[in-house]
Amino acid sequence: MNIPELIRKKREGDSLSEEELRFLIGGFLSGAVEPYQMSAFLMAVFFRGLEPAEAATLTKIMMTSGRCYDLSSIPGTKVDKHSTGGVGDKVSLVLAPLVAAAGAVDPMVSGRALGHTGGTLDKLDAIPGYRWDLTEEQFIQQLGKVGCSIIGQTDDFVPADKRLYAMRDVTATVESIQLICASILSKKAASGANALVMDVKCGSGAFMSSEQDARALAKQLIAIGTELGMSVSALITQMNQPLGVTVGNTLEVLEVLDVLEGGGPSDTRDITVELGAEMLVLARLADSVPQARKRLEGLLDDGSAMAKFQEWIAAQGGNPRIVDDRSLLALAPDRDHLRASRAGTIVSMNTRQIGVAANVLGAGRVVQSDVLDHAVGLEVHRRVGDEVAAGEVLVTIHHRGGRGLDAARRLLENAIVLGEGRVAPLPLVLERLDKNTR
Amino acid sequence: MNIPELIRKKREGDSLSEEELRFLIGGFLSGAVEPYQMSAFLMAVFFRGLEPAEAATLTKIMMTSGRCYDLSSIPGTKVDKHSTGGVGDKVSLVLAPLVAAAGAVDPMVSGRALGHTGGTLDKLDAIPGYRWDLTEEQFIQQLGKVGCSIIGQTDDFVPADKRLYAMRDVTATVESIQLICASILSKKAASGANALVMDVKCGSGAFMSSEQDARALAKQLIAIGTELGMSVSALITQMNQPLGVTVGNTLEVLEVLDVLEGGGPSDTRDITVELGAEMLVLARLADSVPQARKRLEGLLDDGSAMAKFQEWIAAQGGNPRIVDDRSLLALAPDRDHLRASRAGTIVSMNTRQIGVAANVLGAGRVVQSDVLDHAVGLEVHRRVGDEVAAGEVLVTIHHRGGRGLDAARRLLENAIVLGEGRVAPLPLVLERLDKNTR
Repeated sequence: MNIPELIRKKREGDSLSEEELRFLIGGFLSGAVEPYQMSAFLMAVFFRGLEPAEAATLTKIMMTSGRCYDLSSIPGTKVDKHSTGGVGDKVSLVLAPLVAAAGAVDPMVSGRALGHTGGTLDKLDAIPGYRWDLTEEQFIQQLGKVGCSIIGQTDDFVPADKRLYAMRDVTATVESIQLICASILSKKAASGANALVMDVKCGSGAFMSSEQDARALAKQLIAIGTELGMSVSALITQMNQPLGVTVGNTLEVLEVLDVLEGGGPSDTRDITVELGAEMLVLARLADSVPQARKRLEGLLDDGSAMAKFQEWIAAQGGNPRIVDDRSLLALAPDRDHLRASRAGTIVSMNTRQIGVAANVLGAGRVVQSDVLDHAVGLEVHRRVGDEVAAGEVLVTIHHRGGRGLDAARRLLENAIVLGEGRVAPLPLVLERLDKNTR
Repeated sequence: MNIPELIRKKREGDSLSEEELRFLIGGFLSGAVEPYQMSAFLMAVFFRGLEPAEAATLTKIMMTSGRCYDLSSIPGTKVDKHSTGGVGDKVSLVLAPLVAAAGAVDPMVSGRALGHTGGTLDKLDAIPGYRWDLTEEQFIQQLGKVGCSIIGQTDDFVPADKRLYAMRDVTATVESIQLICASILSKKAASGANALVMDVKCGSGAFMSSEQDARALAKQLIAIGTELGMSVSALITQMNQPLGVTVGNTLEVLEVLDVLEGGGPSDTRDITVELGAEMLVLARLADSVPQARKRLEGLLDDGSAMAKFQEWIAAQGGNPRIVDDRSLLALAPDRDHLRASRAGTIVSMNTRQIGVAANVLGAGRVVQSDVLDHAVGLEVHRRVGDEVAAGEVLVTIHHRGGRGLDAARRLLENAIVLGEGRVAPLPLVLERLDKNTR
């Protein structure tokens, strides 16, 4: 096969066959296809897209480029959740033990964050002793016994995605909707999941800022996932303000404990229950979303989810006593406040800037090699639509010796916009989609 | 500046500033911009295009990436012709001395061919002794004295174009209309020309097969050339059959001599006169195309063009006696014929296949390192619209010991299509365009 002809074919809007895609992706990994040929191909894909079956083929090729977890020894549907990333999104840490408590099996392989959103592995690192580097055998064994596990990606986990993503990141081809789908679904399929609920975040703190774009991504994820033989549904959820109160690793773990105790911010609890209900329905552990919702609320309120959380954390070497002794989760020694400059209503939040503010304190990475300070972060006490008094505390800033404090304060001052009159609170779930959605 | 952001900017359809383009192209040449970033950018340019001013800026940056010939010591307009390439296109070898005989200065820097079309330097190599590797000083001196020179590209002549073209060739980004313009115009500007007539070939033997595409290219060349301060006009000319009779290097030189003697195939003569008339008008050496045409026909018929040809060839070390002793231009020892399989009318010619047939005999290159056999080639005796008798010779095949003969014959049999009834002869010039053309 002729490489420029394959690029030309996509450039002209034609679909590539499985053989042609294998030639390109395999060649890229082996060195037979030059990086500059692959990046030109990826840019052509950005403009021309991929048909669902073509994207599914690409996904399969990427998935099988490395280690795939074989969970066939565990009975039942293996169901996972994936979020496109937001500020304050600590849902996975509640959701995995919650659905496991309901009888589901959730094999979660997570990544670290780069950019303004946090990463699940970084939050788990805030739990003393937690190990995300299980062997394949340990992972499978724990899933069979506990029902959930969150591990990190090994080097041989979907290497094609790693190579392609590194390229896309520096060639302005990240935003291709089908490449995003292939990246997400190849990793979910390789982790052993055969059902998936997508949390497509939408708004100023999300990858997709418009509902239209979020909807398009959700529909493609469902179409391509269905082609792959997975059961997929999606919620489009609010990211025009942080999720919950806390932003920053240890702070978010503390909020997770609150929710697992039956309390916590209502948005964090509600979105976890909504996503979990979808998972139970996909895994055929509930007949309807309302029924599943009720069951999950009960598991949060009666301590079952918390018990499963402790079982899971302990199984991966973490200290389950953090639940009873929160001093094991130390916060940064210093705190400061952002106060309302005047009375008014919060009309909007630039949520990305709030994420960046947490990062400049040390909670996130700007470059891959940055070392995190898990103990710093933000508590955002107010929501869009809230009326506030002059001088009222809007944000508590947990910092270490003033590091990044001035920059974070400036970002937050600009991010939280005060105005006049009444502003409606933001809805949490904007839309639900499945394969029957038109 | 951030490289992915610049790629993204073009991807979204915005124009890049001179500073941004310099950063990208300069970075690509220095290694600061990775090849895979440049190829993604080029693919984005394929889809989004470049504004005329933006393309002119790119052209200037490319032009000044290496040696530029400064012809300011020679008075008057320096005018050149460029063809997008066709089969049997030997026009430059007649045109350069013809317009020089009319008082024009034509600084021609030519390339070799790769693909189905011939290259001017390869044809010149068929002239014993001809040297195209003049020094800058020799080139300028000869232009001042003789009025024309055709030289080859040195390694430091528009190196940005060489690097970009090599990349485009293997990433399916050759067909970007503005990148084609930048490639052509950067080389013409660097050669010292400030006026240019474009011969945009159109048809089965041309880069542009449709008149619509040829027109779009011509209009972009004029728009971008005008932005660069050049005077540019364009003819869209026929390439649905070979130009003239001969295809192959020595054969084409023989046809050149015929035309310079006032004879030769009428299409070769007429197109040369048409292009030359445009050049004289652009160089303000004639008031109108009809006046210029008449003057050029006179210079062909009275031997002035031939005298200038001999002067030019001798000045560059070639043997001017080829004019009087054609045995100095030896053809291959063997010849064969393609005959009409039946009586009929020639309804069409796949001209590209005819070019490929000459190449398989050894007249052209398939890969850069192929060594040419200047003495082989084709004489295509008939034209689209001609009625032919069964068994009539359509093509004389000049070959060396049967090398490539069978393959060439098969190609020619398929390329020349016989049918019934009357077919109109093909027009030579399809359209003339200048900066006032809408």
